Amino acid sequence: MPSTFGKLFTVSTWGESHGPAVGAVVDGCPPCLPLDVAEIQAELDRRRPGQSDIVTPRKEEDRVEIMSGVFEGRTTGTPIAMFVRNADQRPGAYDEMRDKFRPSHADFTYQAKFGIRDHRGGGRSSARETIGRVAAGAIAKKILAAGAAGHAVEIRAFLTQVHDIVAPTDALARFPTLAEVEATAVRCPHLPTAEKMIERIKAVRSEGDSVGGVIECRVRGLPAGLGEPVFDRLEADLAKAMLSLPATKGFEIGSGFAGAAQRGSEHNDTFLSRDGGVHTLTNRSGGVQGGISNGEEIVFRVAFKPTATILRPQATVDVQGVATELIGRGRHDPCVVPRAVPIVEAMTALVLVDHWMRQSAQCGVFKF
Amino acid sequence: MPSTFGKLFTVSTWGESHGPAVGAVVDGCPPCLPLDVAEIQAELDRRRPGQSDIVTPRKEEDRVEIMSGVFEGRTTGTPIAMFVRNADQRPGAYDEMRDKFRPSHADFTYQAKFGIRDHRGGGRSSARETIGRVAAGAIAKKILAAGAAGHAVEIRAFLTQVHDIVAPTDALARFPTLAEVEATAVRCPHLPTAEKMIERIKAVRSEGDSVGGVIECRVRGLPAGLGEPVFDRLEADLAKAMLSLPATKGFEIGSGFAGAAQRGSEHNDTFLSRDGGVHTLTNRSGGVQGGISNGEEIVFRVAFKPTATILRPQATVDVQGVATELIGRGRHDPCVVPRAVPIVEAMTALVLVDHWMRQSAQCGVFKF
Amino acid sequence: MPSTFGKLFTVSTWGESHGPAVGAVVDGCPPCLPLDVAEIQAELDRRRPGQSDIVTPRKEEDRVEIMSGVFEGRTTGTPIAMFVRNADQRPGAYDEMRDKFRPSHADFTYQAKFGIRDHRGGGRSSARETIGRVAAGAIAKKILAAGAAGHAVEIRAFLTQVHDIVAPTDALARFPTLAEVEATAVRCPHLPTAEKMIERIKAVRSEGDSVGGVIECRVRGLPAGLGEPVFDRLEADLAKAMLSLPATKGFEIGSGFAGAAQRGSEHNDTFLSRDGGVHTLTNRSGGVQGGISNGEEIVFRVAFKPTATILRPQATVDVQGVATELIGRGRHDPCVVPRAVPIVEAMTALVLVDHWMRQSAQCGVFKF
Amino acid sequence: MPSTFGKLFTVSTWGESHGPAVGAVVDGCPPCLPLDVAEIQAELDRRRPGQSDIVTPRKEEDRVEIMSGVFEGRTTGTPIAMFVRNADQRPGAYDEMRDKFRPSHADFTYQAKFGIRDHRGGGRSSARETIGRVAAGAIAKKILAAGAAGHAVEIRAFLTQVHDIVAPTDALARFPTLAEVEATAVRCPHLPTAEKMIERIKAVRSEGDSVGGVIECRVRGLPAGLGEPVFDRLEADLAKAMLSLPATKGFEIGSGFAGAAQRGSEHNDTFLSRDGGVHTLTNRSGGVQGGISNGEEIVFRVAFKPTATILRPQATVDVQGVATELIGRGRHDPCVVPRAVPIVEAMTALVLVDHWMRQSAQCGVFKF
Repeated sequence: MPSTFGKLFTVSTWGESHGPAVGAVVDGCPPCLPLDVAEIQAELDRRRPGQSDIVTPRKEEDRVEIMSGVFEGRTTGTPIAMFVRNADQRPGAYDEMRDKFRPSHADFTYQAKFGIRDHRGGGRSSARETIGRVAAGAIAKKILAAGAAGHAVEIRAFLTQVHDIVAPTDALARFPTLAEVEATAVRCPHLPTAEKMIERIKAVRSEGDSVGGVIECRVRGLPAGLGEPVFDRLEADLAKAMLSLPATKGFEIGSGFAGAAQRGSEHNDTFLSRDGGVHTLTNRSGGVQGGISNGEEIVFRVAFKPTATILRPQATVDVQGVATELIGRGRHDPCVVPRAVPIVEAMTALVLVDHWMRQSAQCGVFKF
Repeated sequence: MPSTFGKLFTVSTWGESHGPAVGAVVDGCPPCLPLDVAEIQAELDRRRPGQSDIVTPRKEEDRVEIMSGVFEGRTTGTPIAMFVRNADQRPGAYDEMRDKFRPSHADFTYQAKFGIRDHRGGGRSSARETIGRVAAGAIAKKILAAGAAGHAVEIRAFLTQVHDIVAPTDALARFPTLAEVEATAVRCPHLPTAEKMIERIKAVRSEGDSVGGVIECRVRGLPAGLGEPVFDRLEADLAKAMLSLPATKGFEIGSGFAGAAQRGSEHNDTFLSRDGGVHTLTNRSGGVQGGISNGEEIVFRVAFKPTATILRPQATVDVQGVATELIGRGRHDPCVVPRAVPIVEAMTALVLVDHWMRQSAQCGVFKF
Repeated sequence: MPSTFGKLFTVSTWGESHGPAVGAVVDGCPPCLPLDVAEIQAELDRRRPGQSDIVTPRKEEDRVEIMSGVFEGRTTGTPIAMFVRNADQRPGAYDEMRDKFRPSHADFTYQAKFGIRDHRGGGRSSARETIGRVAAGAIAKKILAAGAAGHAVEIRAFLTQVHDIVAPTDALARFPTLAEVEATAVRCPHLPTAEKMIERIKAVRSEGDSVGGVIECRVRGLPAGLGEPVFDRLEADLAKAMLSLPATKGFEIGSGFAGAAQRGSEHNDTFLSRDGGVHTLTNRSGGVQGGISNGEEIVFRVAFKPTATILRPQATVDVQGVATELIGRGRHDPCVVPRAVPIVEAMTALVLVDHWMRQSAQCGVFKF
Repeated sequence: MPSTFGKLFTVSTWGESHGPAVGAVVDGCPPCLPLDVAEIQAELDRRRPGQSDIVTPRKEEDRVEIMSGVFEGRTTGTPIAMFVRNADQRPGAYDEMRDKFRPSHADFTYQAKFGIRDHRGGGRSSARETIGRVAAGAIAKKILAAGAAGHAVEIRAFLTQVHDIVAPTDALARFPTLAEVEATAVRCPHLPTAEKMIERIKAVRSEGDSVGGVIECRVRGLPAGLGEPVFDRLEADLAKAMLSLPATKGFEIGSGFAGAAQRGSEHNDTFLSRDGGVHTLTNRSGGVQGGISNGEEIVFRVAFKPTATILRPQATVDVQGVATELIGRGRHDPCVVPRAVPIVEAMTALVLVDHWMRQSAQCGVFKF
């Protein structure tokens, strides 16, 4: 199932940018979870277009409907189907894309793979597909917040870089509050940096251009023991989750690429006892050792390329391979990264709930 | 199946460092492929310990046996079981690890997850597990080399960085030959850099320390159309494959983290017609757009942390959480990255064959 | 994903009897298949309530909507989401079931498993769930009818038994036409038997009772080579598909249970050459040998128990375990078997398309 | 993975009849389970050839070796690899099968599917493949016997029919003891019937012929709540498990095909309170309602066709499609059903452990 993510707590998304709707089905959800549609809506509102003056002005209310799996305000353990109608469609705006391949978009590769594509607004490759992920992630986040056996788990993503503007490392040493992240439209909790980022985004937008950026995501409260020794390492599944997002080009956990330039004697995380548990003095591992969570903060970063759609003429070819030119139209974010924050959190939550359930399956019921 | 990788062309590995053997089962292999055990052995020899003076002196011949799935020199389409006996075991050398958690190893997390662990040589977390991956990857590489419909696919991984020694970008602009990569023990095709790397590895070894590094991997000859639009993007599955390897901390494709600092007008890959096909002028996408291969070279990089085992005293705790000290023993690589080259290639081959078969399933038999 | 069927051509269903809607998502569909909503509607109309005077009078138009995956009348290779709104809901009619467990229904087991259940009309356990299967099966049937490499595949299911009325074996020797099956409300192509069946169903209904029956399903035109040697044998996946339908109690293929009473010399199917191909003189194997189709007709049978809901007082217990009595209400089929015919065909089609795609994956693209 | 069974507790088998060995890998096993190789050997001995005078005289000791996943007598939670060397090979005895298709064997279909086959002793289609299943099932049975939360689960399979000799229903009303089953070589706990069965098997063997039979399997001690509402119903997975065994032609649960001839008022299982729990007065459901166990005994039956290999001349064709004749050679069971008893139990155990772990995953860790 190429459109399904997860093994036990699964989300399957469907829908195209300019089809009737986009949606998701969550299967395997624990039963009896109190769930209100407003909780899902709140997360969707964080990724919604038009929420600030630095994102796409596409007007979508993105009202989610729950179609199944919830009875009298609680989940029943059966599939939860949700969808959002596509409202602000201007298919005419995309007529040019029927025949021309937009540079660094999925137009050419979809055509090469399927021999057909819904060209309107990118069709399936549109970031609107992530609506289903965020809706599903809202459920996963709620499960994690309730936690198990007293472990409430918190996930916090935020921007550390836009173009060449990078938040100072020490400014982000602390686990930021949600309020700090949501304080600005760029979702960088370091205010001076956030202001520069907003300025830069407005500047490139005025030039019809776009920029990329980096998101850091942290998780605290996760118990040790989640993840699998070999292929399904926690960091492997997080990497897959992140690289499955549109516009992502890189993933690193803990020390990441910088760790490659270190010595073992610098890099190793010393164990120590604290509060009756085993902890590490430093966290270059990023909360994962041997593929399995060690109880420290999970810390990883995701690189996003600049938005491919720019409002400038670009050389390209048409479906016959003939050279032509194309000017981006439609309504696009000059920088997608701020709106990607809730999506990164959603995917993280999906990975964590799935692995926690896997852990319960193998080590929870049969005790020897 | 936490120890299985792939959806259609699958490899399942088993075995511990100091158990009787390590092995793998490949299921879903196309039938009638000519396959000789020597072809698999050749790849295993590239990752074998003791192959040069900068790797672990553990003496393992690592002779592979094929137990099933091959009949009269050709694959039959049934599971191919392979294994390698563990020979050079010194279990006594690990007695200290029974009770102490080695820093930045999997000792603590395995104990936290399973409540039991085979402490000898890291047990399941040992890099010997990758023997099964390399054996399976040898089959996948052979399939790709034969290719389909005239597409012979070549995979080439090599080192671009050891510690702070980085190969100059322009020195690696060309797809290196296998001979160039294998010319030195560090597997960096840029000779002057390779020499510095070797020198550095020897230096840190003499200090009882270790270093990390970076591998770049390129694929050429891959047709456009492989990969899935949403979760199972080609880059997502490559990222998962790479982060599933021991000691990896990061993955980036194409422009990677550097791409986050670019503008769209710099980053976009212009389409053009060449040799009767659609190509791109540049390759910041790294050969993948919208999750699907575009026919250009696949280019990605993987960050490896320094080997956790160092021959210096380190503070840690024992299984009761009591503070103690530990000195690394056993035989370890001061830098695992050179031996990781065939492993990166193997995982890449597994991902590509799997996606090619998925593409055939969906778009190959029912034509409309 | 407990609500997903298939490996490559998958259907995931969602929805409860008295929720807003029931639906399905088909993922992995080959692209470019011409698909009209009317083709799906036609299959749904065959399972719809109220279609004749021997089925439930529940009034449901069951109008299907396609929400994604189809563009300009052709499939795009992306997920096809479909749903049907639940119209004729009388939740009040089910108030009694909130607290009482209906005998031989899923009320008790859902409560035991999930600790919660949507009691209205059986919730998720309602046969309305099969709407999604039939919609997905309509797509699979269309793919099979178009076939591959000249193999048009036809699936025909029909009743051979209602209560103790059994169609004579020789009357069903021939592959019946769709018209013959659809000629009567019971979907038994042997007219004299069909009349007796209808009479019997009316008789038991007038007594507030119900009856079971048997469906035979045949497939012709299927090439040899589909199915897997071991666990995923074609008959194993067909058996799973059939036993996954509500009210089924048995499955047999070819000679079935009667074959257990035969000798090898009677039972073996002799090979012979005919029309340039290898065929069998008899078909006690039911078209499958060693788990793989042999090119003969696939022939299997499915046993359905009598409808659990009867309009008579029955002893039972309530959710506190206290003895009580219950009289079936609501609108139910005295015999579900005639309406199960399109569902059996749908599940068969799903199994066959999935295995055909698996065959293409392993043996289609890489040829040696 | 066509050679893997299960979702969380999985077994993957490999090996051909006349290759070096046959084996299995169990992945997902709960950690810390005490496990001795002798426990696995004991189950293998029950399916071993040569154990009585009514089975094949092929001489195989079938000594199992554990290669991984067990440390100091307990499972570690990592994959458990096991294998058995093939000893008594007479490849020359199969030369004729290289070119001729044995009637009702897998020779033709394997050739049609893969274009190649290991013809020696049936290769992968040999019943020796089930050795891996029995070894894995031995682990699953041990887990079930230990149970969870005080539920010790017992599985008992036995013969109820050989050819037209059927054990009287009331003679099997009680859950038989293992000793009763193992008392005779046919594994029918009703002694007078067992004697007739043995006599019949000897008679058909002396005529160079074979016979089929039926196995009933019962499970007691299983808690309510295992199984999934829709596709992965417990009976669906049991049906798949049974039809995945060589020579099986049918599966029925509870009332089975006989239930199709009943009325709802006869068939429904009345609920009642007993020993502080909800139970049913009768068990026509066979322990499963709505796809989920209800706490009563699981009861199902499996039909086996007569052994295809008979020592009589049979007409067939060769690989070129030319008519020819063939006389069965090699060493075969005139009736495979007695040796299938431990295999049926093994597959049942695998299904139950898997579903119990799935239940734990969804309903065990996150409690609301």
